[in-house]
Amino acid sequence: MSVILGIDPGLTRCGVAVIEASPGRTGVMHFVDVIKSDPNISTGERIGMVAESLNTLLSQYPIEAVALERVFSQANVRSVMGVAQISGVVFYLANQKKLPISLYTPTQVKKAVTGHGRATKQQVGSMVMKLFNLAEMPKPADAADALAIALCHAWNFNPALTRKMD
Amino acid sequence: MSVILGIDPGLTRCGVAVIEASPGRTGVMHFVDVIKSDPNISTGERIGMVAESLNTLLSQYPIEAVALERVFSQANVRSVMGVAQISGVVFYLANQKKLPISLYTPTQVKKAVTGHGRATKQQVGSMVMKLFNLAEMPKPADAADALAIALCHAWNFNPALTRKMD
Repeated sequence: MSVILGIDPGLTRCGVAVIEASPGRTGVMHFVDVIKSDPNISTGERIGMVAESLNTLLSQYPIEAVALERVFSQANVRSVMGVAQISGVVFYLANQKKLPISLYTPTQVKKAVTGHGRATKQQVGSMVMKLFNLAEMPKPADAADALAIALCHAWNFNPALTRKMD
Repeated sequence: MSVILGIDPGLTRCGVAVIEASPGRTGVMHFVDVIKSDPNISTGERIGMVAESLNTLLSQYPIEAVALERVFSQANVRSVMGVAQISGVVFYLANQKKLPISLYTPTQVKKAVTGHGRATKQQVGSMVMKLFNLAEMPKPADAADALAIALCHAWNFNPALTRKMD
């Protein structure tokens, strides 16, 4: 069993989950939340707030690995930039603690937890609930996604695809 | 005169310049360089190396403001992601020191130093040389760009466009 921090990066909403799991087994959820930042304050302060919350998690739990959703170009350039900026900060903070960082595409994450790469958010949430023995579905979706990302890493979904970290 | 750190963000090459300047005057160049990171090491280590160099500059000079080139969606998604990741780290580090951060588009920077927004890299480099009384053109272009970005900020090219920091 290893302790993994799963992150669904974002500036407005950043899903975070700390889990303990090993390949093929259900996981133990230690923490799940969505870090939010106020769009009305400066980007520097927003990034500072998200980073502070991430740092707190990195200090509070004996995290051994960080799993991060890979940034993709989407329709909304502004939102992608926020995602990439937070992912840069995650790399920075995790590297400071010499933690390995692995990236997974949304398709890899969905496939790992539901068996198919085009699963809906509802299906991912529902499987996450089962796989962690939760009474309720984690909300919002970013929280469930962070759990799914961490589990995807724990199960070592496809090591070949995670070797090159970028 | 205020001391400004100008940054042309990038993961492979990050242009940095520390200048002292005030509106309408030629500037004093204290430092100019291009921070490079090896594409063959992990993204975490690359970001860590760039951040370390940025932190050194932030400690060594009495920097009062950070000017950063605004990230745009370009043809090369991979390169844009590196730029956005480094810009996230710049926001994080500058915010830690409570420094104001301003963003300028490439067009704003070119217009500020050459008078027209579609100037070539050669034209920007040549003007930067003049405006800082340099014997040679700073190379590579990322170094000249960092000087131009810092100068654009010093001259307060268009405050209205820099108010919203994102």
